[in-house]
Amino acid sequence: MKFIHTADWHLGKLVHGVYMTEEQRYVLNQFVQLIEEEKPEAIIIAGDLYDRSVPPTEAVSLLEEMLFKINVELKVPILAISGNHDSAERLSFGSSWYKHSKLYINGKIEESFKPIHINGANFYLVPYAEPGIIREFFQDSSISSHDDAMKRIVSEIEDSLNPNEPNIFVGHAFVFGGKTSDSERTLSVGGSGCVSVEHFSPFSYTALGHLHSPEALKHEKVRYSGSLLKYSFSEANHQKSVSIIELNSDGSYVLKERTLVPQKDMREISGYLEELLDPSVYQYQKVDDYLKVTLLDEGAIIDPINKLRQIYPNVMHMERRIELSDLRKKHTITQSGFERKSELDLFYDFYQEMTTSEFTEDKRRLMAQMIDDVKKGMVLV
Amino acid sequence: MKFIHTADWHLGKLVHGVYMTEEQRYVLNQFVQLIEEEKPEAIIIAGDLYDRSVPPTEAVSLLEEMLFKINVELKVPILAISGNHDSAERLSFGSSWYKHSKLYINGKIEESFKPIHINGANFYLVPYAEPGIIREFFQDSSISSHDDAMKRIVSEIEDSLNPNEPNIFVGHAFVFGGKTSDSERTLSVGGSGCVSVEHFSPFSYTALGHLHSPEALKHEKVRYSGSLLKYSFSEANHQKSVSIIELNSDGSYVLKERTLVPQKDMREISGYLEELLDPSVYQYQKVDDYLKVTLLDEGAIIDPINKLRQIYPNVMHMERRIELSDLRKKHTITQSGFERKSELDLFYDFYQEMTTSEFTEDKRRLMAQMIDDVKKGMVLV
Repeated sequence: MKFIHTADWHLGKLVHGVYMTEEQRYVLNQFVQLIEEEKPEAIIIAGDLYDRSVPPTEAVSLLEEMLFKINVELKVPILAISGNHDSAERLSFGSSWYKHSKLYINGKIEESFKPIHINGANFYLVPYAEPGIIREFFQDSSISSHDDAMKRIVSEIEDSLNPNEPNIFVGHAFVFGGKTSDSERTLSVGGSGCVSVEHFSPFSYTALGHLHSPEALKHEKVRYSGSLLKYSFSEANHQKSVSIIELNSDGSYVLKERTLVPQKDMREISGYLEELLDPSVYQYQKVDDYLKVTLLDEGAIIDPINKLRQIYPNVMHMERRIELSDLRKKHTITQSGFERKSELDLFYDFYQEMTTSEFTEDKRRLMAQMIDDVKKGMVLV
Repeated sequence: MKFIHTADWHLGKLVHGVYMTEEQRYVLNQFVQLIEEEKPEAIIIAGDLYDRSVPPTEAVSLLEEMLFKINVELKVPILAISGNHDSAERLSFGSSWYKHSKLYINGKIEESFKPIHINGANFYLVPYAEPGIIREFFQDSSISSHDDAMKRIVSEIEDSLNPNEPNIFVGHAFVFGGKTSDSERTLSVGGSGCVSVEHFSPFSYTALGHLHSPEALKHEKVRYSGSLLKYSFSEANHQKSVSIIELNSDGSYVLKERTLVPQKDMREISGYLEELLDPSVYQYQKVDDYLKVTLLDEGAIIDPINKLRQIYPNVMHMERRIELSDLRKKHTITQSGFERKSELDLFYDFYQEMTTSEFTEDKRRLMAQMIDDVKKGMVLV
């Protein structure tokens, strides 16, 4: 039994104001080609197919197009679950009709306990769910954490599990010991969102989504495939891939990872402005990659980001190594971290993250005024 | 060939701050029962399945539940198109998988020209589209109105139409001569949104959605089925029904209309407050209907809406027959119409229409301040 494990496609993702849709299409076309070559018997997508509960229509169309190619044209069964970024109801709409062609999209916890049988293996599709949902579902008030919830779900599965066949758990969770990157939104603080890896011991393989790198968890049978693309600069050193699993009937397996190569990479560079604008420096680089640039220059520089963008059109983020004068501070982001930013800078970061439009001088003035008003207690709500 | 024509379900509709979901479920269950009795060979849903492009998840679940009952359990083919309230992309997601069980949901203009054949009849499913989309699709710059667009679409269909078989057009448009009611949002002013009824002459039957009453158009072969429920008080005198068509092989047909009875009706009542609160007046009424109450009293009355709601819990809207003093005006809506309302009153109406939360005194004060600021030109955006 050969299957491919992928997760965290995050279709509709906006990174520093840039929609990743075309980049996602590019890599997904590669993925489709890889499926044609590998001829797997199933594809697992372990949650976060979309980046948000109401994705842009371009993302909706892209998902439909890719599922169609894989499932209808190549006739490969797909086993997908909703993640914390998906709306379970919206993503799984129509799943009753999909089943006939072996497209399984599960968003309902009640559907998690009956496995999908494919070529001798049993797949349990467990969507992401808040502990409250699981507590309600089992009418069990002792469930208060993700860990409690997962333990309960697995114990329910175990009641009817056939240990003589290979069993695969498909889930979307923060499994204990995992390292986070910036693009995985923090769900709960202080570890209460974590799930112990031990719960998955009844399964031959656990295909996880949520953390964006396979490196996030070192375990023989419980694995993250990693995300489709790099979705933040904290993932700049990741190598994105999908996991190809050749499962034996005794539950043992052979793993192969195949890399997905984006059209534009996401990288960090640093140097003095003059240096970075020097042809001898940039001529051997892929200048249209998505870049985070750290400038080492001290003192004032006029309009560095636009100068950089003349050479590197996709600079997404620029930092200065040093503190800047108050005058310039508002346009740049210091390395001193979250706590030391002004409200206006924090809003600017948020605005950049959430929109594609420019944060104009008018908007800045209005926002500054509003922040000021709030501080003075003038606003009534 | 027997089919049922319905349209304008508007799932997720909010009427005067009340979600109609449970009312819609009640009537749709009736509809399912009616299908069991009538045993039609197909169901047409002529657009506006949802009330908005991103419907609430309860509406998504309700649509899935009803389509499942009709299409999977009762095995009746469904022919649906997206209307102006639906998002074509979101509604038709997955339609490639639905087809195998004869669930057809078309949101794409390019899919309109190949008919669906069911038991000797040909159904053309033409989703709602703005003229610009049709202009782009045909690369025909002469298309500027809905009328031009429809003419072009029908001429494309005619190229391959078999006039010896019954042909049914399924569309969502404002066909000329139709009367509007308040709940059909005005799309274009001055008649440019209208489509001439003559375009549909090649078809044995044209099943329309958009206008909420079968009375909206008097034509032998081009018909509105009307909406599922009353969605505004301007529809208070409508009788909601679905149309049952027995189509002969020569294209002639017999029409039967079957009424859908809501759990709570939408009605208008008027009288003096004291009269309306008198048991002898209300004891024979269905007091939990959705009501618009017009009070005939002159002068000040203390808190009439709450007094009314003690007897009639679902008063959605209250009017006074007379102009009120400025002090009270802000809480009521005069009969003098749209043009004479203050900005604050207009916003209040809008707020009531769009939300379920209370428009508190704090919100009112803030909004009044904002309107004032805008008038003074203080706000920069």
